[in-house]
Amino acid sequence: METKQKRILTGDRTTGKLHLGHYVGSLKSRVELQHTYETFVLLADVQALTTHFEDPELINSSIYDVAIDNLSVGLDPEKVTLVQQSQITSIAELTVFYSMLVTVNQLRHNPTIKTEAKNYGYADLTYGFLGYPVSQTADITFCNADLVPVGEDQVPHIELARKIVRKFNDMYGTSIVEPQVKLSTVGRLAGLDGNAKMGKSMGNAIYLSDTPEAVWERVRNAVTDPARVTINIPGTPEICNVYKYHCVFNEAEKDNIAELCRTAQIGCVACKKRLNAALNAMLDPIREKRAYYEAHRGEVRDLIIEGTRKANVIGNENIHAIKEKMHVLI
Amino acid sequence: METKQKRILTGDRTTGKLHLGHYVGSLKSRVELQHTYETFVLLADVQALTTHFEDPELINSSIYDVAIDNLSVGLDPEKVTLVQQSQITSIAELTVFYSMLVTVNQLRHNPTIKTEAKNYGYADLTYGFLGYPVSQTADITFCNADLVPVGEDQVPHIELARKIVRKFNDMYGTSIVEPQVKLSTVGRLAGLDGNAKMGKSMGNAIYLSDTPEAVWERVRNAVTDPARVTINIPGTPEICNVYKYHCVFNEAEKDNIAELCRTAQIGCVACKKRLNAALNAMLDPIREKRAYYEAHRGEVRDLIIEGTRKANVIGNENIHAIKEKMHVLI
Repeated sequence: METKQKRILTGDRTTGKLHLGHYVGSLKSRVELQHTYETFVLLADVQALTTHFEDPELINSSIYDVAIDNLSVGLDPEKVTLVQQSQITSIAELTVFYSMLVTVNQLRHNPTIKTEAKNYGYADLTYGFLGYPVSQTADITFCNADLVPVGEDQVPHIELARKIVRKFNDMYGTSIVEPQVKLSTVGRLAGLDGNAKMGKSMGNAIYLSDTPEAVWERVRNAVTDPARVTINIPGTPEICNVYKYHCVFNEAEKDNIAELCRTAQIGCVACKKRLNAALNAMLDPIREKRAYYEAHRGEVRDLIIEGTRKANVIGNENIHAIKEKMHVLI
Repeated sequence: METKQKRILTGDRTTGKLHLGHYVGSLKSRVELQHTYETFVLLADVQALTTHFEDPELINSSIYDVAIDNLSVGLDPEKVTLVQQSQITSIAELTVFYSMLVTVNQLRHNPTIKTEAKNYGYADLTYGFLGYPVSQTADITFCNADLVPVGEDQVPHIELARKIVRKFNDMYGTSIVEPQVKLSTVGRLAGLDGNAKMGKSMGNAIYLSDTPEAVWERVRNAVTDPARVTINIPGTPEICNVYKYHCVFNEAEKDNIAELCRTAQIGCVACKKRLNAALNAMLDPIREKRAYYEAHRGEVRDLIIEGTRKANVIGNENIHAIKEKMHVLI
């Protein structure tokens, strides 16, 4: 007795290499989910244009970088489908159709749009950026994805997506799947420099593609408990950035390290070395896979092209059925 | 020595049958232009959705109605290309790309959007409606049209289209043709009822598909010079709606009729009968062609499908070249 696997739509904007923040927040659970769900990974090169439209060359190299990041962390090319967004015509078509069903005010009041517009400092919002939740709805529904793994901050987008799909289905009698949120349990990864977020623009990112030397450079410069000016002063792990990382990346040792820190039996440098070892232990098999894919970029290209072809077949079938219901087929 | 014909993009939203206002404002000159320009006639069924999204069945029947209206007035299926907008994927793709290059404020301050939003009474503008000039830019440029015949009121849209194309070309090094306005010399046709505009929603439209009886019904009820309560009172043609129509549709007789009216030698009913005769003389050959196409709807369907296929070949070639320049081809 076979039950059809539910479909997940996930992905990344192709605006640069992925880092530990992406890994903790999304990639890690993606690797687990691929065994239970049919997984589509969107290489979101069109959505990347919303903020990076002046930099097409970055977008192109990032298509490969993001694909290789996903494959290197353990996504199985036999299981997952890589989909290059700009080549899926049905996503553009759905974006246009959905744009008739959502008001400018609904988009303006969307909290994520508000925040992001503020972060990126756009006094003058572009039309495309304002429509981010509309094109995201198209991304999710072109293949009728059942589930979208997102963080708490993305929930309002998915809520709006569900509203749009419901309205569309009501109006045209279509059967587009109303996507469900699959909430990520892992929160946002802070930077080792004390910044609340790891990010490329923060200059504090540890990339999945970083060398051991680059990783150590970040770890070595991490801000620890500022009161611990000498090794003899007992530390307070709870306020230490390095300890936070031990909790995420070095769970086996974390209690022991906290104890050693509180009792001044370990210095910050030694503690950082342990974290460094844990990070590299995690990154080494990723590096190994990356080396393979970097040496076989043709294979990566074929995976993207074949996944995109498969996705287009699905998308074109769906858009055809939708157009039939919309009575625009003659 | 052969010079390549310039390409014109024109068309109609598929929201109902076309009337004399459309004929005077656009169709008539289209018939003339087809000999000098390569003409693409867009059956704008997606743009129809911006205001008629609740009425898909109307949109479907209107695709045929608008195509038959265009053919009946004398567009030569050997010369013009009928293009069903919803089937042209490159238009949707360009709409998405262009939406990154135009700001919400540019769209909000566009005078046509302001007016139309007011006319349609949308307190709450839809995202798609706000983006009308963006999708219109995609309509024009998917086939690299050189010229767009428009009325004065549409000029700000084309100005914005030119801005978007310039910015896009500058950014990506593409060679999308910057469209030129071909200003219509004929103004807006007023209603015979005295309304400043002929329109379906005004209830004053004389359709190209109307029977002689229906035409007479509109002409018979036309509001003339209100001071002329009996036939013996001399009239003032300049303030008479029927006279305005004589000027447009019965040029040969108009001076004579004005003279007869001013000298009270012709009554309003007789004057209306002359207009009625002129209108039907113009409409009769249109009716004849319509009868043919109504009896051969399969042929109309084939013309739309073949024109759309041809347009997709052109659009897909262009979008491929554009994507190459955008560096999203891997």
